[in-house]
Amino acid sequence: MQLLEERIQQQGEIIGNDIVKVDMFLNHQIDVSLLNEIGKEFKRLFANENINKIVTIEASGIGIACIVAQYFDVPVVFAKKGMHRNVGNDIYAGEVFSFTKGITTQIGISRKYLGPDDHILIIDDFLANGGAVKGLCHIAEQAGATVEGVGICVEKGFQPGGKELRAMGLHVESLAVINSIENGIISFG
Amino acid sequence: MQLLEERIQQQGEIIGNDIVKVDMFLNHQIDVSLLNEIGKEFKRLFANENINKIVTIEASGIGIACIVAQYFDVPVVFAKKGMHRNVGNDIYAGEVFSFTKGITTQIGISRKYLGPDDHILIIDDFLANGGAVKGLCHIAEQAGATVEGVGICVEKGFQPGGKELRAMGLHVESLAVINSIENGIISFG
Repeated sequence: MQLLEERIQQQGEIIGNDIVKVDMFLNHQIDVSLLNEIGKEFKRLFANENINKIVTIEASGIGIACIVAQYFDVPVVFAKKGMHRNVGNDIYAGEVFSFTKGITTQIGISRKYLGPDDHILIIDDFLANGGAVKGLCHIAEQAGATVEGVGICVEKGFQPGGKELRAMGLHVESLAVINSIENGIISFG
Repeated sequence: MQLLEERIQQQGEIIGNDIVKVDMFLNHQIDVSLLNEIGKEFKRLFANENINKIVTIEASGIGIACIVAQYFDVPVVFAKKGMHRNVGNDIYAGEVFSFTKGITTQIGISRKYLGPDDHILIIDDFLANGGAVKGLCHIAEQAGATVEGVGICVEKGFQPGGKELRAMGLHVESLAVINSIENGIISFG
């Protein structure tokens, strides 16, 4: 998606050779008109999938998911962090391991809001090692829900998450794929 | 706002005499079409304010803020939790005390995304003791930004936050004000 790549080039903040922060327009300050263009593009890319729910994870996925959901005319459910299985039997629990932070976070979705009738599109801002998407897929599996697709704004193509998710047979669409960040220059795939 | 009151009556989950959970449509599962009606209503209520940014706090405020922002045609900035002042000098820091949980949470907004030219509308899902809004006002004050209004989905009228914020001179609009929850019956103001 050219518009998103341009914004990353113009406003992304590069840190070293593997981090680009998009705080300016995607996950701290949020350019809602850009999110609307992202929503239209995901609708085009997943037009053939039968989707009745958007699933994401707090916090930075929520805004994107809500705007995207308007183009599918479906509700959003977001996984909450810090929900342990021992909170009760009323949640589907998963884990997300963050390579960046070196920590595992517990996530959960109430059993009331995900079930065997659900055909979901998973939405997230970034895909690097795929920890968040795998955690959400594990929750979907417990619920008997079908993952119809995975829509990502920015994929780091030089990290293994995207490859692994596609090898699992998932329909993954990333609007901008970063192939490399070298000497302050971002190359897209 | 009659539509929101009806949804709270129909789908709110009452716990004791002071908690109503709206997980079904507002802050776990999200009914995006309801949020659009909420966005239109806030635009009507704050039509006379000169607003150039919506400010909220993660996580449950973000989805509401993004949909509302479409009606004002402005960006969203959300305060992040767990941001301490000692992360660096590049954030405005605040604190939110939760009476429900009995804990204080550090919040922060990057100095890059809030400043003296900003005229903000603060959006949040719930207002009870006003901790979140006061924390965001403290951040706005540091940034030199003007708080033009506070838009709340559900205010607990039997808790002091709304009264205190209005006494501070803030323009607070709550779409549903719960006066009491007694024996499983919610009364609106």
